Amino acid sequence: MRQGHQSWVFPSRPVIVGAAAIGGPFEAKGPLADDFDTLHGDLMMGQDSWEKAERVLLEEACDKAVEKAMLRKDDIHFLLAGDLTNQLITANFSARTLGIPYLGLFGACSTAMESLALGSLLVDSQSADYVLAATASHNGSAEKQYRYPTEYGSQKPPTAQWTVTGAGAAVIARQGKGPHVVAATIGRVVDMGLSDPFNMGAAMAPAALDTLEAHFRDLGLPHDHYDLVVTGDLGKVGHSILSELLPKHNLHIPLDRYQDCGRMIYGDNPVVWSGGSGCGCVATVTYGHLLNQMKAGKWRRILVVATGALLSPISYQQGESIPCIAHAVAIESEPNEEG
Amino acid sequence: MRQGHQSWVFPSRPVIVGAAAIGGPFEAKGPLADDFDTLHGDLMMGQDSWEKAERVLLEEACDKAVEKAMLRKDDIHFLLAGDLTNQLITANFSARTLGIPYLGLFGACSTAMESLALGSLLVDSQSADYVLAATASHNGSAEKQYRYPTEYGSQKPPTAQWTVTGAGAAVIARQGKGPHVVAATIGRVVDMGLSDPFNMGAAMAPAALDTLEAHFRDLGLPHDHYDLVVTGDLGKVGHSILSELLPKHNLHIPLDRYQDCGRMIYGDNPVVWSGGSGCGCVATVTYGHLLNQMKAGKWRRILVVATGALLSPISYQQGESIPCIAHAVAIESEPNEEG
Repeated sequence: MRQGHQSWVFPSRPVIVGAAAIGGPFEAKGPLADDFDTLHGDLMMGQDSWEKAERVLLEEACDKAVEKAMLRKDDIHFLLAGDLTNQLITANFSARTLGIPYLGLFGACSTAMESLALGSLLVDSQSADYVLAATASHNGSAEKQYRYPTEYGSQKPPTAQWTVTGAGAAVIARQGKGPHVVAATIGRVVDMGLSDPFNMGAAMAPAALDTLEAHFRDLGLPHDHYDLVVTGDLGKVGHSILSELLPKHNLHIPLDRYQDCGRMIYGDNPVVWSGGSGCGCVATVTYGHLLNQMKAGKWRRILVVATGALLSPISYQQGESIPCIAHAVAIESEPNEEG
Repeated sequence: MRQGHQSWVFPSRPVIVGAAAIGGPFEAKGPLADDFDTLHGDLMMGQDSWEKAERVLLEEACDKAVEKAMLRKDDIHFLLAGDLTNQLITANFSARTLGIPYLGLFGACSTAMESLALGSLLVDSQSADYVLAATASHNGSAEKQYRYPTEYGSQKPPTAQWTVTGAGAAVIARQGKGPHVVAATIGRVVDMGLSDPFNMGAAMAPAALDTLEAHFRDLGLPHDHYDLVVTGDLGKVGHSILSELLPKHNLHIPLDRYQDCGRMIYGDNPVVWSGGSGCGCVATVTYGHLLNQMKAGKWRRILVVATGALLSPISYQQGESIPCIAHAVAIESEPNEEG
């Protein structure tokens, strides 16, 4: 049900009964490697194109999440999925393979939490018993589509980010064992006039701020409510900007409890410039690393704020700035805790 | 709430309290011209690119729908929108202008009913008081992105369709005056192996069939329940194929009550080959013409089945067939009728 201007609380506390993270060879070298269910040694995943490789990631994530939920694909009522490819071919073709009624979503990298938020709403409103929420990205297909042919080896500034090759999926259910989705905040588009596609973190940080402000306002929560607030893929640059913006906007989230998936996934590897990005970044870090940490008792309440840069190569070429958005989902690891 | 495998019924019967259709110069020459709220004489809408022109259409449709609902933009809780441009820049930039919390959706031309179905679910589940559901397409931006530069003047086969330049929007509310959204069926991806992007109608017809079968099965309705069943944009070719498929699959929808928006919007104009297509086709025909007909008492119960071809130029170039989908929404004009 709606709470405040742009948030939902889920009184039935839908459960993530299964979740999976699939990654590529570069993710296998990162500090979160142990949190992936499968890591591919081959960037092509045995396919003849990056787009088809990305599809393998998404389908494997869906299969694994359903398997870990101890369900069959037939049990899933709806698939809510999206990715970064034009016309969402990764999600569309995966939906064809899965054969599950499908709602395609697009919010760039924010799609990971857009799908988890809407999926939880479907379950909470008894519009579905089981929903699969899934997103993917692939470094090769993203570079080719958004930037330059990879073979050019074009140089990038230190504010650029590295698109994650990975997919994450979660099965949301009305009951079962697992962490609970207790609330979500749907973001507005925020555009501060930045137009550099090699500095997405700076463009997206104000959108994350806007959604965080809305979340704490709508739910009336103390700013230290969460054990961890994690943004999607602001990277080092965006994380640093948001860390400065928060106190200036009287949002006193303890900074030692604020992290960013784009900073976490590759650690300090300088090759990735400012950090990871892509739908697969927040999805794999959340459904792999963070849920594992919750299971291990490290975090009880987390808020995942997935950010998205809603530009296209065409909008950039036409001189437009970068509209950004962020969707937040609150996850709790204990069943009887207040949301 | 869920009914059957892939359908929702909305016990609170959300109301379409305002709807609008905006079109371009070519739509102004068609038989449904009188049903548009605004018709532009200039394909560029005073902008310097087709993409920006498309944005004007979507923003005008949203503004007009909100105005006709006698609301202000601030009253709208969520915007559910999508279009055909890569990364949905039409919807993204419109969401920036509107400043309403935004969920981006993509289902190609099926997005029109994907947004109406999800928007009605949000209202029915008390997750929103007012939702704006909106979609747009533009002949220029679609031709450029999906096919050839328009200046080539490349020839097309008679099975091809003409992308509608237009946008439609609807405001869905918990109460008020207007037709009610009573149920929706979410489609699965259906792919019969067809791969000709100049014959989308044939590719999409089986997806419409699959969703129609699911709708009547899930809701347990007699096949003549609706005064009108209307598909999104199968065009003349797809309409003819579906008309043959229906009885073969024991779906006895009276064929004199089955129409297609892609056939209706341009009448018999041979310039459009098989008929209209694009997100703007089903959206403008439904939110303009069909709702006007319901208001005039011609139809009391209609089922709008919006079809979408979920291909991209890349998937086509990589030799893939066309995955298709269809989402159906049932609309009734009387408040106390059983859904």
